[in-house]
Amino acid sequence: MPTTAPTTVAPAELRADIDNFYAWHMQLLDAGRVEEWAGAFTSDGVFDAQGHPEPVRGRENIRSASRAVADKLAEAGIVRRHWLGMSHISPGDGNVRVVSYALVFQSSKEKGTLLHASTTCEDILVPDGGSWLIRERVVRVDGIS
Amino acid sequence: MPTTAPTTVAPAELRADIDNFYAWHMQLLDAGRVEEWAGAFTSDGVFDAQGHPEPVRGRENIRSASRAVADKLAEAGIVRRHWLGMSHISPGDGNVRVVSYALVFQSSKEKGTLLHASTTCEDILVPDGGSWLIRERVVRVDGIS
Amino acid sequence: MPTTAPTTVAPAELRADIDNFYAWHMQLLDAGRVEEWAGAFTSDGVFDAQGHPEPVRGRENIRSASRAVADKLAEAGIVRRHWLGMSHISPGDGNVRVVSYALVFQSSKEKGTLLHASTTCEDILVPDGGSWLIRERVVRVDGIS
Repeated sequence: MPTTAPTTVAPAELRADIDNFYAWHMQLLDAGRVEEWAGAFTSDGVFDAQGHPEPVRGRENIRSASRAVADKLAEAGIVRRHWLGMSHISPGDGNVRVVSYALVFQSSKEKGTLLHASTTCEDILVPDGGSWLIRERVVRVDGIS
Repeated sequence: MPTTAPTTVAPAELRADIDNFYAWHMQLLDAGRVEEWAGAFTSDGVFDAQGHPEPVRGRENIRSASRAVADKLAEAGIVRRHWLGMSHISPGDGNVRVVSYALVFQSSKEKGTLLHASTTCEDILVPDGGSWLIRERVVRVDGIS
Repeated sequence: MPTTAPTTVAPAELRADIDNFYAWHMQLLDAGRVEEWAGAFTSDGVFDAQGHPEPVRGRENIRSASRAVADKLAEAGIVRRHWLGMSHISPGDGNVRVVSYALVFQSSKEKGTLLHASTTCEDILVPDGGSWLIRERVVRVDGIS
């Protein structure tokens, strides 16, 4: 959880950049474009999601793990929407730490729309040209531990 | 869904403007002030919402269609909250394209608060003095097609 | 509800500041760090939450009231996530008025994650060094009146 004082830690350009980055990133995931989505991780990026037996290491492994999930959802006729919000942005030395909440909503013809999960999401972002790459993502699911 | 690379496409002032615009716009709708809400469309604006038999064309028609919905909700003692988020902002040539997610929550004394719908919302905004007008809005509802 | 025209009322730096402030503030509350959370109110701050018999006045009273709630939730194994969003920011004379929506999600091992409440949140913020303090917060719960 937040470790910095409530000072002005994130300049406006950084906030605008990161808001747009996450919108782009999550819309790709939810559209099933997981190859592009996974491209937002560094080649040695780590995705540590609670519920998985262990963290997924490396962009290619993140890609294939996501492909498997996306295919399963598509077959089941399920659309997910990942909402990232309440993001606390802390610029660091050559990277940016973003601690957010994330909600996952799930829709299908059969069941309508349901809240699927509430989580926290801690990212370490590194600059990459004019954009960002995710070096590490830690997702913890509320209510399961 | 997003068509631009994850580059820095939205300057900070634009993001701040648009965030405030949507907050103002949705709060008007949910307060039943649909006349002012509809005023945020261009006079020839189009509101294409899935579930409606066809797109509503022109500010005055958008206004009257919205009045009818608002009156029905008020009679039924229902309050709606429209949350727009995960907005991906792409400045274009004389306009701005914003692709967002939107959630609708619905509250009443009888049923408490329920998630009513998860949607996508694609807007084309055009500048209007210091603010924005909506030239086209396309809303697609998750889980119904 | 919004009282200003949809003009550019909030400069980008202000929006970025306030977004980060609320993320920090709500993450503290949900982590049970209510002492630090209450520190974001002015010493004579007022927290007027619907459902409470009367407004809580003064930072120390806000602190102890929050401690009691946090302890009860911790004992019951409940995690809450406060999402503040759709914030309309209106800079005033020496202060800033922020009218937002807020959702409360609640998770536990027994019941999973549920939407607990939909509310509006009207804050008067005053500058404090590089950050903000809350002088007045009015929370109204949808569907109970």
